Parts: sequence; C-alpha cells; structure tokens
Amino acid sequence: MIEGEEEVGSDNLGLFVASNKDLLKADVILISDTAIIANDIPSIDVGLRGLSYMEVAVQGPNRDLHSGVYGGAVANPINILCQMIASLHDEFNHITIPGFYDGVLELSASDRAAMAQTPFDLEAYQQDLGIQSVHGEKGYSTIERASIRPTLDVNGIWGGYTGEGAKTVLPSMAYAKISMRLVPNQSSEEITRLFTEHFLSIAPKGVKVTVKAHHGGEAYLMPTDSIAYQAASDALATTFGKEPVPTRGGGSIPIVALFEKELGVKSILMGFGLDTDAIHSPNEHYGLFNFYKGIETIPHFFSNYKQLSQ
Amino acid sequence: MIEGEEEVGSDNLGLFVASNKDLLKADVILISDTAIIANDIPSIDVGLRGLSYMEVAVQGPNRDLHSGVYGGAVANPINILCQMIASLHDEFNHITIPGFYDGVLELSASDRAAMAQTPFDLEAYQQDLGIQSVHGEKGYSTIERASIRPTLDVNGIWGGYTGEGAKTVLPSMAYAKISMRLVPNQSSEEITRLFTEHFLSIAPKGVKVTVKAHHGGEAYLMPTDSIAYQAASDALATTFGKEPVPTRGGGSIPIVALFEKELGVKSILMGFGLDTDAIHSPNEHYGLFNFYKGIETIPHFFSNYKQLSQ
Repeated sequence: MIEGEEEVGSDNLGLFVASNKDLLKADVILISDTAIIANDIPSIDVGLRGLSYMEVAVQGPNRDLHSGVYGGAVANPINILCQMIASLHDEFNHITIPGFYDGVLELSASDRAAMAQTPFDLEAYQQDLGIQSVHGEKGYSTIERASIRPTLDVNGIWGGYTGEGAKTVLPSMAYAKISMRLVPNQSSEEITRLFTEHFLSIAPKGVKVTVKAHHGGEAYLMPTDSIAYQAASDALATTFGKEPVPTRGGGSIPIVALFEKELGVKSILMGFGLDTDAIHSPNEHYGLFNFYKGIETIPHFFSNYKQLSQ
Repeated sequence: MIEGEEEVGSDNLGLFVASNKDLLKADVILISDTAIIANDIPSIDVGLRGLSYMEVAVQGPNRDLHSGVYGGAVANPINILCQMIASLHDEFNHITIPGFYDGVLELSASDRAAMAQTPFDLEAYQQDLGIQSVHGEKGYSTIERASIRPTLDVNGIWGGYTGEGAKTVLPSMAYAKISMRLVPNQSSEEITRLFTEHFLSIAPKGVKVTVKAHHGGEAYLMPTDSIAYQAASDALATTFGKEPVPTRGGGSIPIVALFEKELGVKSILMGFGLDTDAIHSPNEHYGLFNFYKGIETIPHFFSNYKQLSQ
C-alpha cells in the first residue's frame, strides 16, 4: 500500500481502511518511514508520538489601522497573539493548558535509565543544527524531550505587513498554526478540546479569537517482545552486523494507530533514514547507503517472521 | 513642496532640506496631513508622536526541521519570538524596555484635565472599529494612550508555514516588524538603541537574534500661543462656524521635526481628514466635504497670518 496523503492528514485513508478490511487482512504491517540512529548504529522505532494540529486567528479592529492614530489605544492582534502563545509554556517549558498532562504515562526510572543508554552525542547534535544550546522541558534529556514528552510548537505565524521596508500598520488579523505532539495515553481528540477551550479562555476582551482543528492522530507503542520486533531486529543484525537499539521516535504516523484500531494489526517500523536527512526542509535527501540497506534488509524480515511464527 | 516618500521614511528629504536652506526660507510651514475630530468638530493637531521602527529576526536551527523529530528539544524561533515580544509589555501594558520612559515629559494634571474635555464618544469609537473593548496602558484614557503616551506595536510578523492546511515544521527563522511611537523629549535614536540592546539581551541561548532599525523621527509640539496657531484657529472658526479644539495626534510626520532642526521654522498642522478615513488600510478614502472645506479654509490662514504678523 502506498499512502500519498500522510503529510496532509490522510483524510481519505480512514474510510478506505474501514471499508476494505478483508483486502487488508495481514499478520503484521511493515512501514519504512523512520530513521536509524546512524549508519553504523542500527535502531528500530518502537514508539511514535500522536498529534493535534490547530490553527488560530486573532481579530482586533475590523480593518487595518494607522498605528500612529490608534496605536496604544486598541488591542493589536499580533501583540495579543504573541502574549497568548507565550503563555502556553511556563518558565520551565512545561505546557500550561489545564489537563494537558493528565493522560501522560510517566516512564519508570528503569525505562528512563535504559533510554539514557541510547547512543547520543549532544555536541554533534548541536553542531549539526548550528545551535549553541538545546532548549526544552526542565527535568528531561534531549532524547526524552523529543520522544517520550508531549510538546507544543508554533509551525507558522503571520499577520500585518511582511514585505520589504516599513509600514506603520496596526493590523486587523493575526494567525498561527500550532501543533502538539502527544505521547501514549494522551487522546488527540481530548487534547484538541483542551487546547481549544484554554485558548479561547485566555483571549482578552479587546479581540475575537477563533480556533480550528486540522488533523490529529494517536501515539503508538510496539512491544519489543513481539515476533515482529524480533524478526526486524534479527534482519537488521544480519545486514548491519550488530543488534539494533530500540528507540522511541518523536514523529507521528497516524495510520499506525488507525491500522491497529480498525484492523487489529500491529505495525513494525523498520525505516532506514537519518535524522540529518533534512526532512520537511529544503534539500531533503535520502542516502544511497540507506536505500540499498533497506532493499537488502527487508527480505530478511519476511523470512525471519515466517520462521518465528511457525 | 510635495513629499512622496513620507510613508517609506523620507530617506532623501533630509539631504534636500539641508542643501536648499535658501530655497526653503519661510515664516511658517503649513502641512495638511492630519485629521479633525469630526466634520462638525474642527480641531488642530498641536502635537505629533515620534517613531522608531525596528525589524527583528530570530534564528533557531540552521534549517527547517521536522517538528516530530526535533520538537520539544530545540528552541522554536516562533515560540521564542512570541515570548520575547510578549515580555515587552507588563501586565499593566507598560513597556518593559529599561530606560524607555526616562525622557517622557508627563503632562500636568491641568493639561490632562483639559485633554479630558476633548469631545470623544467611546461607544462610537468601539463601534466604528468593531471591538468590544479598548485596550492599553493602565492609568490613561483612550485619547491619552493614542497621543501623549509612547507605544510599542508589532506591525508585522512571519515565520514557518503560512499556507493552507498543515505542515509539521519547526522553522529555522521567525521575523517581526516592531515600531514604537514616541512623545516629546524621547529621542528616536536613543530609543532605537535601548530597544536594540534590550531585545538582544532577552534572547535565550538556543537562538540567534538580529535587530535592525528602519526609519525614525522625533515627536513635535506646536505652541498654541503662536501666530501660526492663531491664524489657523481663526481660519477654521470662519469656515466651520466654531472655534477648533487643539488636539495631540498620535501619528508621526518626521519632516516636521526635521524642518524645525534644519530651517528653524515651525509647522502648523492644518489637516481636514477624519480618523475614520481608513488610512493605511484597504478602502482608504477622503471625503468631498473635507476636500472642499480645506480649499475654502486655507486661504483664510494666509490672510490671517499676514494680518497677525504685521
């Protein structure tokens, strides 16, 4: 099956899966849409984050105004939107939406200790991204922040004059796209509702705020004691020459939870990309090493799976 | 003299004025670029606010990132920019830039009492703008907020994905245009410096921030006991049938301070527009009543001025 709508929310896939359960009968689903830690450190993603993707609009005055004539006396929707967005995190970078963390399953100390063993070079990470410092929720490591913790990121913002030079406008409208990555046991529908209620509740009187939901999806966990995980692990061990590391990914593949719900079938995430592939960015790429390694590895999964399940 | 560059900062006018002082010799300068309170309430603008117009950029990672893979672990420049902008006002809507108010001349209680007599209908104002409530600095009226108080407004903001639908990007860059209206005795150059220093100082470690200045200009006051004011007041009284009210405008006409500095000549601001003309907005317009009233009134100014200065 090839899914071409994944980046725009897979609007039609749910209906297709629900109406074609017989056609889609399977023992397990193999998806190659994840990354390995490095070309010499194979890994298998055993977790995915869920997603709630929102769009908000703040309206101040009913038309753009001259910022000299009205500035200071009328709520500026951009200033207000910035204040509202800023208030969604506290000083420790915790998310402030009431109830947001209620569903979150905290990892045990031993699970966190195991995760801390994942090969990770902070200096190389920062150098690759050209940043002086990582930034995130207090009390969690970079790997944890990007996998087992829920997040809230502004994906886009716009309003007012954005051309060259200056225009002294007090704009009528400001907009933002805001998405939250969710972890197992958080419900995308519930988080969407909590965000909407909270965002509307913090709007000051001088503006009108609207919130709409784009797509969402649930988080996912694949047990490492399953036949599918063992078959994938053995396949990678054969072609990479070493045991893969189980990791928890930070991205979302909403169809994985959908497949489980509708078809009752688990998915194994055996991808061969790298985090440095610049996905969702200019110059996105995929290495030939990784492409050929995938072709070489996947047949082993099928024969391993057949053997292990006999 | 016709100035066509005023909205883009009059880059060339300063040089022209400085090199043509003889050509520009005058007793007084008349500028028609302001508004009256209403068609039945004539007024003369005796004050203008100054301006410092800035553009800021916040860079997080060196490229756009996938918000699932990196979200939560890397500073998102839009979230950071929103936090930085939000922090520029406190809970009372005072501006938090250190030293920002140092130069501000506070009006005396009697001047504020006189200003409170200016005809102003808050309900009509809110209805015209389609807002439920005005919004501004605590302790000041709407007229004061829009004239005698300095302000800080975001005129434009942009970053990340702003098209239709959703894209789960953690962007590399976020930008904003931010302008401050200044009052007499605040120096545009000094405020530009204070803003720049402060904005750079509040940047967290995970981002790089740059600040550049667009144009600026100084605030201005025209004494009401001058011949020019008297000549204008009498002219409006003749054509409107009632004495005009002296008001302080919130906009900026940087050439007024420039003329005074370079030519030693004061300007009288005798404009005939209305705040509801939607200036700097779609469907900007100018009433025929106001156009003809201007044609009718201005010749009276010239003859009044000649008589009063003899």
